[in-house]
Amino acid sequence: MRAIVFDNPGKMSLVDIPEPVAGPDEILLQVDAAGLCGSDIHAFLGAFPAPFPYVPGHEVAGTAIAGGGNTDPRMIGKRFVVHPLRQCGHCDSCRVGRINFCSDLSIYGGNLQGGFAERVAVHQSCLYEVPENLSSEEAAFAEPLACVLHGLGQIGVEAGDRVLIVGAGSIGLLLLQAAISSGASRVSIADLVPAKLETARMLGGHANDLSVDTNKHAFDLVIDATGSPSIVGGLTRFARDGGRILFFGVCPPDATIPLAPFDIFRRELTIAGCFSLVREIGPALRLIGSGAVRVAPLISARQPLEGLEKALSFHDHGGTTSDIKTMMIPSLHP
Amino acid sequence: MRAIVFDNPGKMSLVDIPEPVAGPDEILLQVDAAGLCGSDIHAFLGAFPAPFPYVPGHEVAGTAIAGGGNTDPRMIGKRFVVHPLRQCGHCDSCRVGRINFCSDLSIYGGNLQGGFAERVAVHQSCLYEVPENLSSEEAAFAEPLACVLHGLGQIGVEAGDRVLIVGAGSIGLLLLQAAISSGASRVSIADLVPAKLETARMLGGHANDLSVDTNKHAFDLVIDATGSPSIVGGLTRFARDGGRILFFGVCPPDATIPLAPFDIFRRELTIAGCFSLVREIGPALRLIGSGAVRVAPLISARQPLEGLEKALSFHDHGGTTSDIKTMMIPSLHP
Amino acid sequence: MRAIVFDNPGKMSLVDIPEPVAGPDEILLQVDAAGLCGSDIHAFLGAFPAPFPYVPGHEVAGTAIAGGGNTDPRMIGKRFVVHPLRQCGHCDSCRVGRINFCSDLSIYGGNLQGGFAERVAVHQSCLYEVPENLSSEEAAFAEPLACVLHGLGQIGVEAGDRVLIVGAGSIGLLLLQAAISSGASRVSIADLVPAKLETARMLGGHANDLSVDTNKHAFDLVIDATGSPSIVGGLTRFARDGGRILFFGVCPPDATIPLAPFDIFRRELTIAGCFSLVREIGPALRLIGSGAVRVAPLISARQPLEGLEKALSFHDHGGTTSDIKTMMIPSLHP
Amino acid sequence: MRAIVFDNPGKMSLVDIPEPVAGPDEILLQVDAAGLCGSDIHAFLGAFPAPFPYVPGHEVAGTAIAGGGNTDPRMIGKRFVVHPLRQCGHCDSCRVGRINFCSDLSIYGGNLQGGFAERVAVHQSCLYEVPENLSSEEAAFAEPLACVLHGLGQIGVEAGDRVLIVGAGSIGLLLLQAAISSGASRVSIADLVPAKLETARMLGGHANDLSVDTNKHAFDLVIDATGSPSIVGGLTRFARDGGRILFFGVCPPDATIPLAPFDIFRRELTIAGCFSLVREIGPALRLIGSGAVRVAPLISARQPLEGLEKALSFHDHGGTTSDIKTMMIPSLHP
Repeated sequence: MRAIVFDNPGKMSLVDIPEPVAGPDEILLQVDAAGLCGSDIHAFLGAFPAPFPYVPGHEVAGTAIAGGGNTDPRMIGKRFVVHPLRQCGHCDSCRVGRINFCSDLSIYGGNLQGGFAERVAVHQSCLYEVPENLSSEEAAFAEPLACVLHGLGQIGVEAGDRVLIVGAGSIGLLLLQAAISSGASRVSIADLVPAKLETARMLGGHANDLSVDTNKHAFDLVIDATGSPSIVGGLTRFARDGGRILFFGVCPPDATIPLAPFDIFRRELTIAGCFSLVREIGPALRLIGSGAVRVAPLISARQPLEGLEKALSFHDHGGTTSDIKTMMIPSLHP
Repeated sequence: MRAIVFDNPGKMSLVDIPEPVAGPDEILLQVDAAGLCGSDIHAFLGAFPAPFPYVPGHEVAGTAIAGGGNTDPRMIGKRFVVHPLRQCGHCDSCRVGRINFCSDLSIYGGNLQGGFAERVAVHQSCLYEVPENLSSEEAAFAEPLACVLHGLGQIGVEAGDRVLIVGAGSIGLLLLQAAISSGASRVSIADLVPAKLETARMLGGHANDLSVDTNKHAFDLVIDATGSPSIVGGLTRFARDGGRILFFGVCPPDATIPLAPFDIFRRELTIAGCFSLVREIGPALRLIGSGAVRVAPLISARQPLEGLEKALSFHDHGGTTSDIKTMMIPSLHP
Repeated sequence: MRAIVFDNPGKMSLVDIPEPVAGPDEILLQVDAAGLCGSDIHAFLGAFPAPFPYVPGHEVAGTAIAGGGNTDPRMIGKRFVVHPLRQCGHCDSCRVGRINFCSDLSIYGGNLQGGFAERVAVHQSCLYEVPENLSSEEAAFAEPLACVLHGLGQIGVEAGDRVLIVGAGSIGLLLLQAAISSGASRVSIADLVPAKLETARMLGGHANDLSVDTNKHAFDLVIDATGSPSIVGGLTRFARDGGRILFFGVCPPDATIPLAPFDIFRRELTIAGCFSLVREIGPALRLIGSGAVRVAPLISARQPLEGLEKALSFHDHGGTTSDIKTMMIPSLHP
Repeated sequence: MRAIVFDNPGKMSLVDIPEPVAGPDEILLQVDAAGLCGSDIHAFLGAFPAPFPYVPGHEVAGTAIAGGGNTDPRMIGKRFVVHPLRQCGHCDSCRVGRINFCSDLSIYGGNLQGGFAERVAVHQSCLYEVPENLSSEEAAFAEPLACVLHGLGQIGVEAGDRVLIVGAGSIGLLLLQAAISSGASRVSIADLVPAKLETARMLGGHANDLSVDTNKHAFDLVIDATGSPSIVGGLTRFARDGGRILFFGVCPPDATIPLAPFDIFRRELTIAGCFSLVREIGPALRLIGSGAVRVAPLISARQPLEGLEKALSFHDHGGTTSDIKTMMIPSLHP
């Protein structure tokens, strides 16, 4: 079976690997679509820890073609989205439902084979059926949208909130729509690339230039979707007194920003981080299914497995391209 | 000045009353539009306690034409929405922000003169400026939408919720849109009047026939917007295990429904009531302003003060008419 | 191995059953102590559905004496509390963390062998280590306290709350202490049995006679711990406007109470039910360990397995005895 | 009337000022006790903005001796605690209940005369009656305890939380007790002064040396009560993954700490600040009244107005003295 392998930082290959076999509680999926995530790129570039060598791809939708003995035969032929986190279920974190901090976490597209391959075997507890009205490509967005819902859940969105999002890539555009769907009355969004802002406008956002003069203390909620420390370090000034700031983007592990604790105290600010997802795949699928979150406009390219290297090269330029989401389609042929 | 007076249950008159004068902290508004609320009708019919005789109208938008000595002259000429609750500020409830339970509450359109009149004097702390892009008629919906936001805040809406609303009158249609705007992925709505369901569909709802077979335990959140005890008494069966039920409609004060406490326990249900509004006018105006909540389609009639009696007669038939919201326009002439 | 079996409603026996064997992910516990719960009694009397015949006992603490191949050998010799719910992990409820509504739930002391036996085999994901400073008897209270914390979590306790609890049995006395530990400033508690009220007083409660004259609308939070419909039906009148009511007690499945929906609306009341527990064993053990919740004073009797029939007979009299918690000690001999 | 005046940074005087007269909505209080707060000291030293010259003292309890025309004559002779924030009621912040960010805020002990004087006139909406079982000295702690409850409300305390507090001054010792009363199972507390730790232990805390080896990632909630940037900058390492950090102490306005945004993201940390109080005086009085929070042990000195200069000098040494709370008693004579 053909699969992408990230061999070590900066080196990838398209190889033949043994056909995955569904264990007793597993379903074998034919991969229909697998989104390329910013964290895949960070990991490939060595900026985020990864279990080299491995088969990446954690935003996966596919069709069940075989199943283990403990699975329901009626699943075969149906389409599913993969929850990439497979919890141990025993550790202190799992016991309180914080599976994103499982001390023995297995991850599809990490230490478990991911979806940048023709097929993948997935534990049935990690599969969510795709509604009929959604394409597999759309369904593959359930994972990043679940991360977005998890993040918004950490910081909270209140009815009527005025929100600022910095970064209009695929995550920024999902945050934009999820914020509107969670009660925001107005979402301002900033990016260097006009084409991305154009997409943001089409999805309900208002372009913002981050001018301090006009934006100072103006937002109930401010969200970073860039991972750039120089951006993140300036965000508190955009939050109103009593406001909230969400660090969603992935900054370099060793970067620091200067924070004034007096400002946090005196202006009663709250800063929250969020990591991965927990239980949000179901709600994410429903919001995509209802049209509340539109994902098709975010697909800027489709690639066969052979096209991943090219797709990665698009991203490797400081986020100045107009590319939003590359969807890997293993059944495509170059 | 011409004003409607509810003299006693079932009797109203259109009379000349003394011109209101703005006190030191008050603004005199020329009433642009004042919505007719179901509770006005309940009160008129004697089904809800009211301070007869009084000038009703608590969903008011108007233009400032004069102001007392403590007010800002720049307010003159601007348009404002009225928060109908004027708190005492001293009582135990006010001190903890529950102004809807103020022990010495004054209410515009209750014990204070309301908006079914040519002009009304309002304390400046009860005025919210209308954004330029909204008509006064649209802005007058800020009050009922604020009540809806307050109700949803009492029971909570979570991302991806499946919601059932019974009743597609003006409140039901605001609940529908506010639920979608608060995270609901799908809102089902039931009503006896096809035309109302048609409006509901246009605003994003899905018509529902309340069949127990297809709806049993199917919803995360169930909301009554009818005030009919026979409806309210059957709502728990539509909520999933762990689900929530909101009593928004105004049932007769002496009606009871049978509730099975074992069902509440075993299925971990939550039932909440909600009364009036507290601090939600600002968010309501913002959500109308952003287009997240569309109110123009809810206006089914405009009436001069002379038309109120006729408008009340439309409603006095068990909710089977297609009327949704009557907007009183004091400047209209019959 | 000796074990209690509930054969069918009203009939129990003490029999020899095959020795349990720890499966690969299981630990075999020597049962140190197992509390007798009101729901055991309800089930025995046929008032609550139960999988007859079965070995009851779901409030269990024991010492690990053997373990399956996937378990850590260092667990042997340590003491553990049992989480009685073993989730399937696959169903819609488990995926969102509502394991108390697992559609394929296994329960120790229900369809899985419980702790009214000499030994019990338990899945390692259901075991929580007992801190050294706690006796096994004290630790066995972690399960009912976890249910209490789950219930308070459903309805919420706010700093300074004035709380009324009806029923001063073992659950009422845990609710009392958990409410104080969660922010209540004053907890009033009612019971027919003076000795129970005396214990309540010792644990920080204030005796209350439920007089409507002195208690009307007086409490932020009202909790039923009786399961008596006639009590439950009168609770809303004790809650202040905006107050909350928790149905913790188990009423007969077919009983109904009359509820005035206008009252729920006008006084903005919230009623919540709660069922079982989810993730609260850890916090419960910590609160017992810290002394915030004192459980030793709740133990009114210790019984060998032979003594269960006698213990049940104490309870079978409408709650008028002074018995609070019977602790079954399988190692005791009559 | 004798009163303390802070003339400008570093200079204070004890002078005769005109007798305050109660306006129509005001009550004249004879000051019984007024606590000296750390922020008084900061302001006096010029480290916190203050409206020089002014009469400080915002933790005030006194006895009503006269009242304006709109006040209830039955208030005379009763004792009251002062809520120091007098809101404008009109601004955007007041309208949503965030009176601590009122744009036209008046503060007793700031731009309004405070309690370091023989008498003070206070608006009736800012007065809370003292329960009979509390001394005025104890009641004067309602204000700092309300700030503490407000802070804990911003960050949240969950049942069973393990909490670390740095600083065992009067605020640290109130945080300690409020955290226990809000669900904490174990509160660790650090300070340089052994006598303070001794008091902390008596109030339920566990002394902690902040060793990174034993405390790394060990706490659900970490709270700064020092205002020292070097302390605050090291706190995230003590929080577990998913943990929370509260900045309660007042750092110098221009100080910054280095924060690693990757750490916030990857470990899903939440940092919150809190400023002043909003609506927590009532709950604070109730928790002091119930004994849940013991304040008498925090009083380390009582001073007549003449003694303030001496009291300030105790504090002016980097927090290394064993002084906790100085209570100013205007009726004392030197």
